[in-house]
Amino acid sequence: MSLLAVGTVAFDSIETPRGKADRIVGGAATYITLAASYFTRPVHLVSVVGDDFPESELQHMQSKGIDLEGLQILEGERSFFWAGRYHDNMNARDTLETQLNVLADFDPVIPPSFRRPKFLMLGNLTPAVQQRVLDQLDERPRLVVLDTMNFWMNTAMDSLMEVIAQTDVLVINDEEARQLSGEHSLVKASEKILRMGPSTLVIKKGEHGALLFGSDSIFFAPALPLSEVFDPTGAGDTFAGGFVGYLAQTADLSFENMKRAVIYGSAMASFCVERFGIERLKNLTDIDIKKRVEAFVKLVNFDAQL
Amino acid sequence: MSLLAVGTVAFDSIETPRGKADRIVGGAATYITLAASYFTRPVHLVSVVGDDFPESELQHMQSKGIDLEGLQILEGERSFFWAGRYHDNMNARDTLETQLNVLADFDPVIPPSFRRPKFLMLGNLTPAVQQRVLDQLDERPRLVVLDTMNFWMNTAMDSLMEVIAQTDVLVINDEEARQLSGEHSLVKASEKILRMGPSTLVIKKGEHGALLFGSDSIFFAPALPLSEVFDPTGAGDTFAGGFVGYLAQTADLSFENMKRAVIYGSAMASFCVERFGIERLKNLTDIDIKKRVEAFVKLVNFDAQL
Repeated sequence: MSLLAVGTVAFDSIETPRGKADRIVGGAATYITLAASYFTRPVHLVSVVGDDFPESELQHMQSKGIDLEGLQILEGERSFFWAGRYHDNMNARDTLETQLNVLADFDPVIPPSFRRPKFLMLGNLTPAVQQRVLDQLDERPRLVVLDTMNFWMNTAMDSLMEVIAQTDVLVINDEEARQLSGEHSLVKASEKILRMGPSTLVIKKGEHGALLFGSDSIFFAPALPLSEVFDPTGAGDTFAGGFVGYLAQTADLSFENMKRAVIYGSAMASFCVERFGIERLKNLTDIDIKKRVEAFVKLVNFDAQL
Repeated sequence: MSLLAVGTVAFDSIETPRGKADRIVGGAATYITLAASYFTRPVHLVSVVGDDFPESELQHMQSKGIDLEGLQILEGERSFFWAGRYHDNMNARDTLETQLNVLADFDPVIPPSFRRPKFLMLGNLTPAVQQRVLDQLDERPRLVVLDTMNFWMNTAMDSLMEVIAQTDVLVINDEEARQLSGEHSLVKASEKILRMGPSTLVIKKGEHGALLFGSDSIFFAPALPLSEVFDPTGAGDTFAGGFVGYLAQTADLSFENMKRAVIYGSAMASFCVERFGIERLKNLTDIDIKKRVEAFVKLVNFDAQL
């Protein structure tokens, strides 16, 4: 089913204990659409870049079934740029530089042919921009999935709460869930957040996996234990892209299928961190993904013999 | 099958964000034997207390099938005492006071009837004391399970490595695994540690669950998401007690059964943190435990539909 994804397309400069990468392609919507493209096509992208964004990268996205009609390319302007350095344990990072560039005045324009998506993924952006997307749709999608971050809770809480109220699935990390709810216990946090609008909450815990909360059910998916994490950048967005892509492919919004979507999202994220940036996500096969999901089954499967 | 457990029996004073408890019963072997007693009896305890240790608590332990013949009660001396305060997030704690008391010169004496245990659980203690236990056994147990901590890696690494070399299952937390191996990745850490002697490694990650590593298999068990963690003290020991108790009950050392043992250990730990000290562990029923294990099945179970 049709999927519309909105978020940043950008350049990142990244330092991790494993190495350094300068001005590689990044951005939430890049990871989201790439991950989702393995499950459903076309993926409609709405975003903005400057004329410094390489044509070859855009062609690669198109080759993956990502429809770029909604990507604004602003002449004479520069793409969003972020530089960061990860700590030794990869669990924390420092932002070294942020250049908003084209993002400073980003006003998303949804092409007419994109205005009836069955699935909508709102990547992390100013809540007002996320709202602008919702406002341009001709009808409500079957499923609205939202990502956000602490920064918007600190600076734009009212408009964020309005967007959350229109969301079906909120996908945030554990610290964001704690800040949003004011509760340390993720169980209590989920109870509060599910009263804000979403019927489903996914809490990403990075290397510690992800929790899926429905109205009266909890599901836990681990992260795959890896010998080496190369670069965690984009793992959360890749998770979200795999999650919503799988749901769009299967068109089944039951809790049982949401569980599978969390596993597929986790599988895609486990690929993401194996190389810098989007490198590992560029050329996966269905067999690669199936094998990775099998690894998750093996990792958690047990016979309780009750 | 017969189980021998060695470790501290002590008093703890504990402050958590949920409240305060003064001089309550604690100690690694207390939690271990209590958790194990739900699976196998008798549990033979080897430890030491002073004459300040309440008779009523000893009677309670005996009522649970814990054999105290190996518990030294030293007249005119005081029991080991620890006081600590947990941080707001419960993931870290500060030690406020440690009084070794009877533990300073603890020389474990294994009663003759305990010297052929099929299962041995060596709780966290000076490696030299753990070695003294091994030296007094008439034959090698079928399974030796060892717990230790960073402190011994800093102060007694050589004797610790000797004990580890005689161990079948090492049960430590993530930070300890990283320090012992010098590897941040838990996958790499497990590879190194499994070359030190143990054939199986359990890495406890607190609220993030536990990993079980065999020679070529990995299993992950989550911690149960709880609305309220009252007091994390003893959760790791309770996990170890449930783990080894289940193995002693089932007498099956296959990886499949080790997986179940990790789940039972996690279930027991999830009870432990619901109240201060050993309170919640005192009067569980088989139904309570079965229901808790069912909650774990529900939490991680999914049909991948591959």
